[in-house]
Amino acid sequence: MLSSPISVDALTDAVEEIFVAGGFSTGQAGPMARVLVAGERDGCKSHGIYRIAGCLRTVKAGKANVTAVPELQDADGAIVRVDAKGGFANPAFELGVPVLAERAKALGFAAMAINDCVHVAALWPEVEALTDLGLAAISMCPSYSTVAPTGGREPLFGTNPFAFGWPRPGGNPYAFDFATSVAARGEVELHHRAGTSLPEGWAIDADGNPTTTPAEALEGALLPFGGHKGSAISTMIELLGGAMIGDLMSTEAAEVLGSNRLLPRHGELVLAFDPVRFSAGRGTDPFAKAEILFDAIVGQGARLPSQRRYAARAESLKNGIVLDADELAELARLAAEGLGAVD
Amino acid sequence: MLSSPISVDALTDAVEEIFVAGGFSTGQAGPMARVLVAGERDGCKSHGIYRIAGCLRTVKAGKANVTAVPELQDADGAIVRVDAKGGFANPAFELGVPVLAERAKALGFAAMAINDCVHVAALWPEVEALTDLGLAAISMCPSYSTVAPTGGREPLFGTNPFAFGWPRPGGNPYAFDFATSVAARGEVELHHRAGTSLPEGWAIDADGNPTTTPAEALEGALLPFGGHKGSAISTMIELLGGAMIGDLMSTEAAEVLGSNRLLPRHGELVLAFDPVRFSAGRGTDPFAKAEILFDAIVGQGARLPSQRRYAARAESLKNGIVLDADELAELARLAAEGLGAVD
Repeated sequence: MLSSPISVDALTDAVEEIFVAGGFSTGQAGPMARVLVAGERDGCKSHGIYRIAGCLRTVKAGKANVTAVPELQDADGAIVRVDAKGGFANPAFELGVPVLAERAKALGFAAMAINDCVHVAALWPEVEALTDLGLAAISMCPSYSTVAPTGGREPLFGTNPFAFGWPRPGGNPYAFDFATSVAARGEVELHHRAGTSLPEGWAIDADGNPTTTPAEALEGALLPFGGHKGSAISTMIELLGGAMIGDLMSTEAAEVLGSNRLLPRHGELVLAFDPVRFSAGRGTDPFAKAEILFDAIVGQGARLPSQRRYAARAESLKNGIVLDADELAELARLAAEGLGAVD
Repeated sequence: MLSSPISVDALTDAVEEIFVAGGFSTGQAGPMARVLVAGERDGCKSHGIYRIAGCLRTVKAGKANVTAVPELQDADGAIVRVDAKGGFANPAFELGVPVLAERAKALGFAAMAINDCVHVAALWPEVEALTDLGLAAISMCPSYSTVAPTGGREPLFGTNPFAFGWPRPGGNPYAFDFATSVAARGEVELHHRAGTSLPEGWAIDADGNPTTTPAEALEGALLPFGGHKGSAISTMIELLGGAMIGDLMSTEAAEVLGSNRLLPRHGELVLAFDPVRFSAGRGTDPFAKAEILFDAIVGQGARLPSQRRYAARAESLKNGIVLDADELAELARLAAEGLGAVD
């Protein structure tokens, strides 16, 4: 029986055991345990152990290949490709990232396309894996369609996350990771269950009219952040992270999935930049220059993204991750019942 | 004396003559005439011939090197660098773009860093130059600081434009180009002159409080679009298009310039992706797939970006560009008086 607080390593082992009991190969279970526990460690409950059940449900529905062995298809040039073979994205990412980093350092700039992967985790662990290697990074992917284009009325885009990371020598990176929708569908569902109204600007009803009623929003669509500009960025993510890499766009992913209770399968695009190469010959230190910007942001009372996450991480690493009784019981139930624990 | 309507070629020749009379080398004058007339052709008055005077004013103030010969510094790898040598960005872009495109097709993915260039034009002509060659493209650059980070109170970012283009076989590309501020400083100045209030959400006063009073906004700062998400994207542009390529960030550009009546000097980053290479082996046509997305956007009554621009372009190419009497008189004055026409 687990107890709280629990160390990152002990929780990772426990989650890995749950996945292995659910039929995952160790090659799939390890990366998935690491990335979900990273979310829990950083206080990101929505991308933490809460997601284990969704993973198991997707496996039980036959929508994830949990013994897949991702395959590195490393062509010449600036593109590294990993075929996830219907397994989760994170094992494919872990396989490809050393090659991507090596290629970015050799050429200055490289991209990784991950194909045919099941998506569940946040993208910030990916950009952080690259900032840890001294590289700047962008990661993006489609999702399943829940978001209407600005001026439209039907779901077409996913929440289409976009993440960016910049290495800060000696400290946590500058990193952001956000949905290009105003809110996540899950947040609308929480308002629906709680009987509360949505903030204005989150959603439209099935006729394309603004609504603050959760039930109407769930029949209609979410909206992109930032009006037509956010809608344009979400379109770009469909194109680069879907059409361009020969993988599913959000409407296609939704059709294949046939449910919004399961995790979608699509592709993902990761870009890695070597600031040392990009600034070569210019006589300036890109990392020192970036610190001037960060100091100016913080110096005027604005916040850098991810700071709450880093504070939670420091606390978790020092004193362990705090789980409540319900969370401990849920982990015990998942460990005991495996795929039987989910419907 | 010019008359209206005027053909694109005739207006380009006339604008090039104005620049040559202002001391520009033909290597600087040609690209600048082409890009400003492209704006006028597309009905983008704010990036059209209206900007000639700003170019001349910047030259007169000694802030642009109008006889600069941009230098291609083509290292191995995925980075193409062009040193603009203090001239305008567009001559440097025209020099580098064939090499960038060739490199993107060879490696799948390449980047161009333009350094030390004076900025005046929109970025959509750049992404369109790459979509014309079958490539997807992103272009971004800092500006001079007029925009506060979300939660802050002082100008730190520029309006930091971000542009994206995707080739559409047989038609105009999917393209967007927007400022990462809610509005441009020029729009606030127009409200100031007209004595009208600003829309809410555009700006803050010098104490960081929201304001709709133009004079207070001009003493304070503009705001990023989309709250903390737009602020994060603007930060990314400062890092990638400034610090990373060894060039000025927006606060540095403002300090060097010492004015907001002149055009800033900084760098620019352009990324080029070859969708044929990214989708290789996947058995899907990325361009055909993208059309499904565009059809779905238009089919539900939403708009694709740039359509008004393309309609204006078609009209200009067919019937010439319409200029009013004031615009014709201004062109005549600039041609006659050269740098003496601006203060």
